This record gives sequence, C-alpha cells and structure tokens, in this order.
Amino acid sequence: MAKKAAKKTLTGNMLIAQSGGPTMVINQSLIGAVLEAKKQKAKIKKIFGSLHGIKGILEEDFIDLGRETVQTLEAVANTPSSMLGSVRKKPTPADCHAIFEVLRKYNVRYFFYIGGNDSAETTHIINEEARKVDYELRCFHICKTIDNDLRENDHTPGFGSGAKFVAQAFMGDNLDNRALPGVKINVIMGRHAGFLTAASALARVYPDDGPHLIYLPERPFSMTGFVADVKKVYKKYGRCMIAVSEGIADKDGTAIAAKFTKEVDSHGNVQLSGSGALGDLLAREIKEKARISRVRADTFGYLQRSFAGVVSEVDAKEARGVGRKAVQCACSGDIDGSIAIKRKSGKKYAVTFERVPLKNVAKETRHMPDNFINKAGNDVTKAFISYAAPIVGKLPEIGRFKGYKVPKKKK
Amino acid sequence: MAKKAAKKTLTGNMLIAQSGGPTMVINQSLIGAVLEAKKQKAKIKKIFGSLHGIKGILEEDFIDLGRETVQTLEAVANTPSSMLGSVRKKPTPADCHAIFEVLRKYNVRYFFYIGGNDSAETTHIINEEARKVDYELRCFHICKTIDNDLRENDHTPGFGSGAKFVAQAFMGDNLDNRALPGVKINVIMGRHAGFLTAASALARVYPDDGPHLIYLPERPFSMTGFVADVKKVYKKYGRCMIAVSEGIADKDGTAIAAKFTKEVDSHGNVQLSGSGALGDLLAREIKEKARISRVRADTFGYLQRSFAGVVSEVDAKEARGVGRKAVQCACSGDIDGSIAIKRKSGKKYAVTFERVPLKNVAKETRHMPDNFINKAGNDVTKAFISYAAPIVGKLPEIGRFKGYKVPKKKK
Repeated sequence: MAKKAAKKTLTGNMLIAQSGGPTMVINQSLIGAVLEAKKQKAKIKKIFGSLHGIKGILEEDFIDLGRETVQTLEAVANTPSSMLGSVRKKPTPADCHAIFEVLRKYNVRYFFYIGGNDSAETTHIINEEARKVDYELRCFHICKTIDNDLRENDHTPGFGSGAKFVAQAFMGDNLDNRALPGVKINVIMGRHAGFLTAASALARVYPDDGPHLIYLPERPFSMTGFVADVKKVYKKYGRCMIAVSEGIADKDGTAIAAKFTKEVDSHGNVQLSGSGALGDLLAREIKEKARISRVRADTFGYLQRSFAGVVSEVDAKEARGVGRKAVQCACSGDIDGSIAIKRKSGKKYAVTFERVPLKNVAKETRHMPDNFINKAGNDVTKAFISYAAPIVGKLPEIGRFKGYKVPKKKK
Repeated sequence: MAKKAAKKTLTGNMLIAQSGGPTMVINQSLIGAVLEAKKQKAKIKKIFGSLHGIKGILEEDFIDLGRETVQTLEAVANTPSSMLGSVRKKPTPADCHAIFEVLRKYNVRYFFYIGGNDSAETTHIINEEARKVDYELRCFHICKTIDNDLRENDHTPGFGSGAKFVAQAFMGDNLDNRALPGVKINVIMGRHAGFLTAASALARVYPDDGPHLIYLPERPFSMTGFVADVKKVYKKYGRCMIAVSEGIADKDGTAIAAKFTKEVDSHGNVQLSGSGALGDLLAREIKEKARISRVRADTFGYLQRSFAGVVSEVDAKEARGVGRKAVQCACSGDIDGSIAIKRKSGKKYAVTFERVPLKNVAKETRHMPDNFINKAGNDVTKAFISYAAPIVGKLPEIGRFKGYKVPKKKK
C-alpha cells in the first residue's frame, strides 16, 4: 500500500493532540511541534490543538494554538501533564470515518498524535484509514511514556523525568529507612516493563544504600523467594528497601495485583495504579512469614508521571526534539511514521531522532533486556545503570558522616 | 523546682540526637547545633552524636561529630532524613536512670534532642530526672515535625518542605486530573493536625484548579457529606481533586482509617501511613454512591517527609537557625527549654527563635485554628494561605494556554 507520489507541497492545517497517561515533559513535545510548525508557513497554515485526543476530534473541540504567544507556549512547555487534555480511547472504524469527515472539513493535512504504544496504534489506524479513503494526510506519532516500553526507541520522553522522581524518592526513603529501620516496600508504575522500577537503583550512593531488592514484571514473582530475599537482606543490614513493579506476575503470568482490581480500559489494560493493595499484601506476607514487625508499604501512584518541579533536563530537551522532528519530517515529503530516539554509539551520551514505521511502534511493547537484570531476578545490572543514568541526569547530592565511633567507657 | 544558681561556666561534653519521624531539613538543625557548638570552645569540649536517639544513649552508641569536617557537615545538612538515625521510644524511669549513668560517665553537660512533641516529652522527662538526681545538665529540645503541630510554635521546621512537596504533588496531579478527568483522592500525613493536608491548597494557580475539597482531622468527617460535596464539584468541573488527611475521624472521634490497622507505637499512636486502605475506602464510596466511574486514590506516604531534592529554602534556613539558637541558649546560663519559632507581626514575613519551657511543647499538640478552616469544613481560608505561603516559598510556575476556541464548521 504505497502512498501516491509526493506533491511538491502539501498545504493545509495542522492538528495535534495528546493521548494516554501524562508525563512531566509531554508538553515539551507539543510545544516543540507547534514552534516548528510556525516556521513552516508555506505548508502549515493553522495550528489546531484537539482537546482530549481523538475525543476532541470527534466533537470538533479545537483550540487555535497558532494564536498563543511564544511566552505562553514556553510556559506550557515547562508545565507537567497533557495541556491539551488526554484520553484513553481506541477508535472504532466508525470513529475513523467520523474523524476524516472532521479532518476534511477543517482541511487538516498534518496530524500529530503524542502518546505511547496505544496512541501509536490509534495513529496507525487513522493513517491506514486515510490511505483507504485516499485522503492525503501526513500522519505522525510522537513518542512519550514513563514506562519506557516503546519499540524502536532506546528510551522514550517522559521516562527520564519519571525515573528521576523515582530515584529521588528512593534516595530520601532509603535514608528514612536507615533512620527508622525496618522493611519498606515501594510499588512503582509499569505494567509490563520494569524500567521505571529499575530506575530506583539510581538512588544508590553508598554500598549499603537501598533499594536492596528490585522486582520487575520481566521475571516471575515467587512469594517464597521474595520472603527469603528479604530475610537475607534484613539479616545483613537490619533493614530492607524494596522496589516492586505494580505489574509483577507469578510464573503463570497472573499479575499479583490483578486479584484486587477489576477495572479495564478500552485498550484492555487492567487498571493497577492508585491502590495500596499490592504493597499491603506484600507487607503482610513479610510480617507473617519473616516475622519482622516494622514493615511499611507505599505506592508512588500518579506522582511518578506528573509531579511538578522534578524534571530531567535531558528528558525535557529530547521531548522537545521529537516534537520538532515530527513536524520537520511531515513537511519533508509524503511520509508518515513515528519519531524514535536512537542512542549513538560511543562513550559520550548522544541521541538522534529517527523516523520509523508506525506499525513498528504500535500496540506491542518492549521489555527490559536480559542484560539489564541480574541472574537472581531481584536486582538490575551495571549495564542498566550505564543505560539509565545519562537519561535521568544529575541527582541531589547525599552527604553522610564519616562516623568516628566514640570508644565505650568502662565507667 | 528552681534550678541552682548558675555556675559562671559549665564545661563539659555535648550530646545531640534525633528522634521521631524524619523531615527534609532535620539535619539542618543538627548541623546548626554542631557548628555553633564548635564555636563554644570554653564550654563545650567534645560533641557526641547519639545514634538512634535515646536508644543510642542507653547502648552508648556515639559518634564524634567534632571530628567531622565542615564540608561533610554541610553535605549532611543538605541531606534529608535523620542522619544520626531516629527512634520512637518513650523512656521509662529505669531508662532515665540508665541515661544519667551514661551522661555522667561521658561528662555530658549539654544535651539536645531534635524532634516533635513526643521527643519534647522525652527531653522534658530527662530534664526533670536530671533535677531530681541533681545532675547539672543543659537540656534542650529542638523542634521539628512535618505535622506542624507543636504548641508555642508559629510553625515547625520540616513543615515548609513537607508542605512544598504536597503542593508540588497537587500542582502536577491537578493537571493530570484535568487531562484525564475523574475523581482523584490524595491521602496526606497528619494524625491530628491538618496543616500538611491544608498545604495542598497552595497548589492552586487558576480558579478551577484543585484541590477542590480538603478534609482535615479538625472537623468531623461525614461520609454522606463527602459524597454530596464530590457530586457538587464533579457537576461543576467534570472532575474533582480531593485532599484528605490520614487522620480524618467521624463525629465520635473514631479515625476512618483506624478500622484498617492495629499497629500502635510506644507513645500510643496508631500507625496510619503507608497503606492505601483509607483512599481505597473513599474511592469505593464515590464509585458506588456518586456513580462516577473514574475514581483514583493515592496515599503520599513517606515521600512527604523524606523526598530528596524538594526543600523550602525558608524551612532549611529556619531549621538551621533553631539548632544554632538552642546551643547559644544552652551556653548562656543555667537554663533549659525548647526553641520555638515565633512570627513577627508586620506585613513582611520574619521570625524569631525563642526559648519556651519544655513542658509547654511536650506531649499535647496544637491543631489548625478555626480561622484557617472554611465554614463548611471542606476547605481552607485565605488566612491559611497567607500563613503558609511564605513558609513554603517559591513553587514551580504553571503555564496554561489562553485556549482560543476554534469555531465549529457547519460542513
């Protein structure tokens, strides 16, 4: 299904929208695209923002982003969460038909959808439908997700800042646990990919720092193994910090948390966040089986994706870059696709933004590669640290006393 | 029970410790005291730090803080959580007797205990016991608590940074809720005092910003009233952001969360944090009674008191100040007490540090004054905002589109 030969110039309006879970830097991508579009005056006329993703298209609920000042655009870029509003909706064939009626009516020829794998799927469906009805449309997906699970991408915008939040949380919480020793379990977002949970390892500064155990959805979770692991760490340090992904599942693939929730979104994802059930369950198990009295559990919840004021500079810059790149690509010829972040080889961290086919990013996700996970399946490797550290950037400095022991006096 | 007339100079060693829940700036107080003690060479010889509060005294587990470099001390000052370790222990009379044996053995004549009301009580008991056995001891409590519930204090070190964390969390989460509308409940620390929960109101920038409802332990919580409040807000905005204190109780004083936990510490406090039970209970109620499908709950947990990298500058400065002041006071004569933060009258925010009697701070706590709570008991007043804003300081800037609506096209 090759597209028609490119017209020299496709002129029309642009429509951009955001979809799926917000991130700390998703507005950087939005503003990166808008600012680039403003430069492409020969091709892009009006710049519409659809409110709440494809829901806004179906309802023709648009705002004119071309009229916003640069000052406003920059302020929005530095603000967390999806400023155009988001949606979790998989378009039906009827929806797609309705969408094209709207696109045609508003002479939209440049369409950008910022989101994760579900949003890439939506973009792919719209693009395919556009071909079918022979509607010429430059259709681009702009990647984002704190889960960091998009295929084709070395990493995704949003992950660096989410990971920074998790790392900073563990840096402080590790010291809290050191001050008042016990077992502390922190449940972290990530349905099928453990990248964000793994990022807790970046919190380690001193050899005895937690997290001491990290459980990822990429490895089967055994309750017996978990209790044994905790006992071992507790014996060594008199305390234990644990990072657990919300998506941990047993060897049959049943999510440990799934027993406690029934809600499912239109993409078929079970809603796992926002409840303390998994943490409480694990804490109870440790209290009973390991006979440790001070056991606490926190579930980081939505703060991981939308906490104001904790942003990775690298992440913000790259998020801006993929937005800009998508518009540049769309204006360069009769093409479509998704903008992926590729890491350059070499010692110094550097990336490029590359166009990849929509279907390569849509629907399926990627997981932590094996070399990022230790043999026992309860920690990450140095390879993961090397991978994640430059994406997260500078973390707060943690001081510690040299701790010169005062000799005990006889009397 | 007046103390003996002051000796001209009391010379001996100093012992300092930390107790109770950590805060983001409790090490500022510790370092403020240590740096001041280093100046008081005629009076204070060695500077011992006891590990894990009075537990460290009983076990003679001390480190020599006088040997730490200024560079290390400053690094520790900027690090969250209690670097000397903490404890939740109320000393028995037998403990006190044992403590004096240790103090005498190490010639400790200056004792400083950094903590909340329980720690002030401990300090008070030690001080009273010192009088009884005629052991000359300068005994000082240095205030801290994110709960902000110490009597005599306008506010307490630790609150400003905890409040900043809560405000930044709500700034982001409000935008998350705006992007994906529904009901969002955030459960915040604070057993009997609602200050930290109230600080969520600082997140508001635009008129429709959440939190839209704030429930404090100072007002009886009615489930019927809660559901009615949420319905009303949801009807108006199509979404609802709620801040709830973990300590909310019904009109008979029974904590709503108490039904879900049994753990009690040695001061008789029920352990409420670290579990999602209260949030889940409230969410379930809204789903069922208000018939709203998208309802989420998060419990902020320990991040509120130990998140690395989110610190109020004012809070850090004041925490340092109370530590310094305690040592200055102790070295000024035969006195004891607690250092309280008093706010100066006048338009410009300014504070002084004043010595107050230990018994005035010990045990009992203070609550949100009536003029900080609205009539309906589901929000704070402007008076609270004026009170809290300067303590928290600068918050991230939140941008927003002007949002020029695109007129709908007929066809």
